[in-house]
Amino acid sequence: MSQNLWAGIDIGGTKTAVVISADPPRVLKRIEFPTLPANGPEHAIAKIQSGLRGILAELNSFPHFLQGVGVSCGSPLDAKRGIIQVPPNLPTWIDIPIVEILHSAFGCPAYLENDANAGALAEHRFGAGKGADNIVFLTMGTGFGAGIIIDGRIYQGTNGNAGEIGHVRLTPDGPVGYHKAGSAEGWISGGGMAQWAATAIRAAREAGERSLLLELPSDYKLTSRDVGLAAEKDDPLACRIVTLLGEKLGHALAILVDILNPQRIVIGGLAMRLGERLFAPARRALAEEALPHSVAACEIVPASLGESIGDVAALCIAMDAGAPAKNSS
Amino acid sequence: MSQNLWAGIDIGGTKTAVVISADPPRVLKRIEFPTLPANGPEHAIAKIQSGLRGILAELNSFPHFLQGVGVSCGSPLDAKRGIIQVPPNLPTWIDIPIVEILHSAFGCPAYLENDANAGALAEHRFGAGKGADNIVFLTMGTGFGAGIIIDGRIYQGTNGNAGEIGHVRLTPDGPVGYHKAGSAEGWISGGGMAQWAATAIRAAREAGERSLLLELPSDYKLTSRDVGLAAEKDDPLACRIVTLLGEKLGHALAILVDILNPQRIVIGGLAMRLGERLFAPARRALAEEALPHSVAACEIVPASLGESIGDVAALCIAMDAGAPAKNSS
Repeated sequence: MSQNLWAGIDIGGTKTAVVISADPPRVLKRIEFPTLPANGPEHAIAKIQSGLRGILAELNSFPHFLQGVGVSCGSPLDAKRGIIQVPPNLPTWIDIPIVEILHSAFGCPAYLENDANAGALAEHRFGAGKGADNIVFLTMGTGFGAGIIIDGRIYQGTNGNAGEIGHVRLTPDGPVGYHKAGSAEGWISGGGMAQWAATAIRAAREAGERSLLLELPSDYKLTSRDVGLAAEKDDPLACRIVTLLGEKLGHALAILVDILNPQRIVIGGLAMRLGERLFAPARRALAEEALPHSVAACEIVPASLGESIGDVAALCIAMDAGAPAKNSS
Repeated sequence: MSQNLWAGIDIGGTKTAVVISADPPRVLKRIEFPTLPANGPEHAIAKIQSGLRGILAELNSFPHFLQGVGVSCGSPLDAKRGIIQVPPNLPTWIDIPIVEILHSAFGCPAYLENDANAGALAEHRFGAGKGADNIVFLTMGTGFGAGIIIDGRIYQGTNGNAGEIGHVRLTPDGPVGYHKAGSAEGWISGGGMAQWAATAIRAAREAGERSLLLELPSDYKLTSRDVGLAAEKDDPLACRIVTLLGEKLGHALAILVDILNPQRIVIGGLAMRLGERLFAPARRALAEEALPHSVAACEIVPASLGESIGDVAALCIAMDAGAPAKNSS
């Protein structure tokens, strides 16, 4: 097969995926394996390389048809120099020059981008951000962060740290996220929500309320999935928790809308699962809190790439389309 | 004189300035007259036109040497369509198509931009923002707003409302600014400060403290200038007020730094007068509140164009250099 190919590598704390595409976002071949950060990066990097060679061979293709390799990975990293800098979920990946490694191995340009920015580009090119010039993509999962697209390109900021809305304080005090009490990540991430929801659940238990969430063992570690499932069954306590989560999300949206006046905010992760139960109070809080002209100009929508976002994000980085100038070694 | 000329028009609620330059930011000729918004816009627009013709004649030049006319004016306005939309300080200027009017009158491209964005461009090209790719320019005066420069160009947002940091809430409650209690404008603008400083002064009076500010008549309307002058004389109460102002400014800076990761934040207005008494607590609060990597990447500096910023801002808009695509009718 002698067609142009792009490879995407999505490195997460749990698993790493390697995909190949001739026509992104459509994936031709995909492999996935546990990243096992405790074993150090060498093991995983060797598997990335052998895996990519393997799927190229399966396609009867050769590395020289690769037009680019894109890596999407958690922050912190140095996108310009192509170095992964000890993300919290990859504690053994200390200053790994992944771009240089892949460029040497495959001879094609390689690029690195953090997962929020890569996801923003993916949703902008192929998902719910299509057709908009300026979007903010919010990841709402373990953490809470943003990727900013301005004039169709990733806005990285001066040293690659733009979009850290999760670190912004929403309340003087409150649940801790990103090492900060009352931060947007403390309120709005899955981990943050588990903290403050536990308080709400304890109060409900003491008040003798009935709720599916009260049937869970008291030493059970609540997840956002549990709350979402109970809310889907109209459990009043779970619905209250999702409503408060939506209000806090609305306050974070308001800050982004007042400062960036974006055309669309695309929200992934938890938001896709919680749907209108989350979006309705979020939009209401946004409308109360931000400038009416800017609220009117901004659509708030769920992400649309779903589970495939990591694959598509890495492929978008490989294509380098819409991304800022990057080091290809 | 047959050289290329640019005209800048700075329309404020009190006065309007018309300047001509062959080599911005150097001004060749300048006139200024009261805007008198109560008399309606026609009067002032006629004076702008006759004034511009007058200074062209004094230079023995002709309108056809004008390469562009730039207008800087308060928000709200529609920069793309070139229409002034009833700024609070110009209540009779209802949907004035200033770009079309000036284009018809002088036959050259005309451009309109809000004063925060125009000031940002001016500081970026000729002032304290020179040499930086990404800057935020903060106006700290009657209001508190930002102009954002990304990759050397004004970032207007989807409908021209980017940079409204003054509308972002810093505290759940507090002094009112931009119709919002506890907003950045409530805390950090001159008008906002006068509100909360009055409370501090009353408390000091009741506590029997001695301060220059307590020697003012109790019905006197305190200004930021009074506080600044007293702080310069090391008046303890005035210094406490400036320190708190600096801390609140630092919290607003932290939001901008976490979201935009700018290379430099340039602060005009009050900040130029209050100097290190304001900057020191602001930098301290910023360092406590924002992400260390982003704080390290960002210089916080006073604006450097001083009183000439309005003239230079309008000239920058006339030159359309670094500004986004605009309507020239």
